[in-house]
Amino acid sequence: MLKRYLPALAWLPHYQARLFGADLLAGVIVTVMVIPQSLAYALLAGLPAVVGLYASILPQLVYAFFGTSRTLAVGPVAIVALMTGAALSQIAVPGSAEYLEAALALTLLSGAILVVMGMLRMGFFSNFLSHPVISGFLTASGILIATSQLGGLLGVESSGFTLWERLASLWLHLPGISWPTLLMSVFVLGFLVGVRRYGSTLLKRLGLAAGTANLLARAGPVLAVVATTLAARQWQLEDAGVEVVGTVPGGLPPLTLPWPDLALWQTLLVPALLISLVGFVESVSMGQMLAAKRRQRISPNQELVGLGVANLAAGVSGAMPVTGGLSRTVANFHAGAQTPAAGAFAALGIGVVTYTLTDWLYYLPIATLSAFILVSVLTLVDVATLRATWRYSRSDFTAQALTIGLTLAEGIEAGIIGGIAVSVALFLYRTSRPHSALIGRVPDTEHFRNVARHEVETAPGVALLRIDESLYFANARYLEDTLYNLVASRPALEDVVIVCSAVNLIDASALESLEAINARLRDSGVTLHLAEVKGPVMDRLNHSTFPEQLTGRVFLSTYAAWQALHDR
Amino acid sequence: MLKRYLPALAWLPHYQARLFGADLLAGVIVTVMVIPQSLAYALLAGLPAVVGLYASILPQLVYAFFGTSRTLAVGPVAIVALMTGAALSQIAVPGSAEYLEAALALTLLSGAILVVMGMLRMGFFSNFLSHPVISGFLTASGILIATSQLGGLLGVESSGFTLWERLASLWLHLPGISWPTLLMSVFVLGFLVGVRRYGSTLLKRLGLAAGTANLLARAGPVLAVVATTLAARQWQLEDAGVEVVGTVPGGLPPLTLPWPDLALWQTLLVPALLISLVGFVESVSMGQMLAAKRRQRISPNQELVGLGVANLAAGVSGAMPVTGGLSRTVANFHAGAQTPAAGAFAALGIGVVTYTLTDWLYYLPIATLSAFILVSVLTLVDVATLRATWRYSRSDFTAQALTIGLTLAEGIEAGIIGGIAVSVALFLYRTSRPHSALIGRVPDTEHFRNVARHEVETAPGVALLRIDESLYFANARYLEDTLYNLVASRPALEDVVIVCSAVNLIDASALESLEAINARLRDSGVTLHLAEVKGPVMDRLNHSTFPEQLTGRVFLSTYAAWQALHDR
Repeated sequence: MLKRYLPALAWLPHYQARLFGADLLAGVIVTVMVIPQSLAYALLAGLPAVVGLYASILPQLVYAFFGTSRTLAVGPVAIVALMTGAALSQIAVPGSAEYLEAALALTLLSGAILVVMGMLRMGFFSNFLSHPVISGFLTASGILIATSQLGGLLGVESSGFTLWERLASLWLHLPGISWPTLLMSVFVLGFLVGVRRYGSTLLKRLGLAAGTANLLARAGPVLAVVATTLAARQWQLEDAGVEVVGTVPGGLPPLTLPWPDLALWQTLLVPALLISLVGFVESVSMGQMLAAKRRQRISPNQELVGLGVANLAAGVSGAMPVTGGLSRTVANFHAGAQTPAAGAFAALGIGVVTYTLTDWLYYLPIATLSAFILVSVLTLVDVATLRATWRYSRSDFTAQALTIGLTLAEGIEAGIIGGIAVSVALFLYRTSRPHSALIGRVPDTEHFRNVARHEVETAPGVALLRIDESLYFANARYLEDTLYNLVASRPALEDVVIVCSAVNLIDASALESLEAINARLRDSGVTLHLAEVKGPVMDRLNHSTFPEQLTGRVFLSTYAAWQALHDR
Repeated sequence: MLKRYLPALAWLPHYQARLFGADLLAGVIVTVMVIPQSLAYALLAGLPAVVGLYASILPQLVYAFFGTSRTLAVGPVAIVALMTGAALSQIAVPGSAEYLEAALALTLLSGAILVVMGMLRMGFFSNFLSHPVISGFLTASGILIATSQLGGLLGVESSGFTLWERLASLWLHLPGISWPTLLMSVFVLGFLVGVRRYGSTLLKRLGLAAGTANLLARAGPVLAVVATTLAARQWQLEDAGVEVVGTVPGGLPPLTLPWPDLALWQTLLVPALLISLVGFVESVSMGQMLAAKRRQRISPNQELVGLGVANLAAGVSGAMPVTGGLSRTVANFHAGAQTPAAGAFAALGIGVVTYTLTDWLYYLPIATLSAFILVSVLTLVDVATLRATWRYSRSDFTAQALTIGLTLAEGIEAGIIGGIAVSVALFLYRTSRPHSALIGRVPDTEHFRNVARHEVETAPGVALLRIDESLYFANARYLEDTLYNLVASRPALEDVVIVCSAVNLIDASALESLEAINARLRDSGVTLHLAEVKGPVMDRLNHSTFPEQLTGRVFLSTYAAWQALHDR
């Protein structure tokens, strides 16, 4: 029991020196790599840059004890930062004390939701997010985030929730463009794209081992941060109009417990729920992928608890909502992390950085962070998946396209809720008209096949109808339609047999429909039978009065029905 | 094409004198019977009583040409009246000109929604309303309507949307009780209940034929209306505190076309959608039941058009939302109606009544109508179904109980939307953890069975996994969990075969999961195979790159997989 809620008990007692070395190295590497993204994603959420560092300390440390993934690195991520910013901007002005306060409330609320969902084992809720909806949402978010950074790259203001609002705001402020900022942006963008694309190849040519070359190439953003910070300090670029991060409070994050403000929490409930859900789905898919690579396993429900506790820790240490981040986790994995201790070491490392280096952060240009965000989020835009979905299924493509359109045009919440609603509706629609076939006997055998496709024996007074789907509310009416049309179109019909070999479930709606069908067929002189009802389905039916009402019989096999009805 | 949208073309050209006699008789009977309910349901919606008569003229006439049911009688019904009242009370004061205006807008909007849904063939939308949700909604509405009539029966005011609001309002006004009204209520209630329960038996004992006795017994409310109206006129009961209908505009309904008020329409959109949906479901189930009794058929999508045009007609003739009504339809059916002409005759009859008798309506006591509504709606309260659902399925019972609770506590819209959401969520939850089984070979046969239940042959390096459900977004993650756990728990595993004999659909989410599973199993040295993939599912898979990615093979049968993997 204790082990379930504190998975660290599974690895901590057996911790060895060999693991310590690998984890420490991974921790140091992750520390260096996550600094730029932590700062950048805090700005993306409309929060002071240092909040991003806070969000990488205590939450990460706490996750090491409560999480089930060996290699997941927890901290601020782009999508969650975007969602955080969108939720907070609706109730406070970015930069104000209320904004920061609301951020802490949102973080705590999201943490509480995750912990409660985990304890109630409600991980299945994330199943409502279908892959096309997630993929569409990520693509649209990538575009939204990218547009939101154009202002930072050009040195002008830009605001808004939807794509059009952002573009309109940018257009309005465009005359105030800062040319030195643009110059620096172009330089940093070029460097980041170059390093990302050619960095590791180049380093390998210089004789470095493949692993080391890949890791070093990933440190490109760190180099950009250091170089532009030094440049801004050396030449006082701030005076030339290059915006910088500015004064940052020194020292470790302040520990606080905000007094619960019920009205505020109510306003933040839906955004907190969506942030929790999206963060969880992103995190758990990644955790599963990496665990599978090493034949380990993670527990989705305990992951909810782990991420929830991490967010609670974020909420009391002045930070923002966190989840498992893709780039930091992949860095951790490839740097050779063996246990969650690597994450703990990284947390300590970022703590040291925060404690010592905040003075230097003053000179970090905003444009550098914007360039970093732009390069990172463009990988979210996934046109290939869109094309593949189109080829594979029009129905899934509809859900995906609608999610993208709604997210861009109406904002994040509308996009994700609309996407879920449409994918559920389309699934219900698909199963609401199940495949069904009138079947007949393959001569001289006990086999039965579709009368439309095979040469089979039938009898004018008997119809054998096979339904290839569970019977539930979405197709209960279709079942009635099908049977009434069958009876209306064949006046000579005396017996109808529903063959249930593919029916895994009959819910209360379908049961009522069966009762109605039975009664109405009886009124018009037709007897209803069932055949090949599965064990659990029959058990369930025996809890109702349907077996007594049934005018006909329940046959064990279609052949038994045939013998009884045809050969009489 | 024309016949599809104007089903009257199917019967009108072949209309005969024999049909005319039967239809005319049914029309006269229905005319007499629907007067009390038309008046009562208009009051229930907070509208002048005469609006109920208007709603039984033009809509009914129009439905005769556009509807596909031979016997459906269209007019105001209790549930729709309740929903109309609830929607309108939120934006105007009952009795005001704005209220009436909003009623017409709601009716037109609901008509337009129905027609559009019919032309787009969206009848399947009604499938979202599961039987437990409908039944729970009817029960709760019955209770709500009954409570709303207590004020009328006691001669005091009462208002509110939820059960508690209504009861509290009633309690507040109770000291103003009108004893003459209560006396009359008790008398009418006793009479109506007595006639309903013993009327037809009594009349049969008096020597009447069963059919005639049943019809006459159904005319009980008419007798109550006539008797109490005469009494109120004779003894001027109005002066004694018995509330009467009062001045009613004479003549036929005014034809108007309200100018579209976009803001108003936007406010009314959700209520109009729910009214359309609920009205359609009620109407079409009844139509189907009666059509099946005579081996006829109706077309749900054309029914949408028919009811939509009826509502448009109601909206331009000063009426309220209409749909197929249970009691009037049953009366029509049992009175021997053969074609929709019976409905047209009834419409003409009510037109004549409206034109000539409105002066008499002045003296009709409200208490009589309240008593009529109370007796009618108590049949909606269905405890037996609640019990049956509890026995049959806890999951369906949850949806039903929640619908009742939400409708009573939060009102009609919350109840119906909450009920739909919960039943969809519960269905997704049920299918999100499909039954799956590791299977092995029954020795010396080509049959395969669950290893946990049968003595079968297995091989340590091979796992045959049969999944008994379509693979889609709600269970895609479960599929991944299942396979990763399987691989993590059996280190010796080399081959996994997913047996797809019960898989009717693989959506884009499940496809991505299969691709992920394939890639991650490959990373850990396990080969993935499929077996028994159905034709349409395989066709679909061939539109993706999955077959090329698959590390293993697609076997036609489980036995083929066994031979290839086990006997090698």
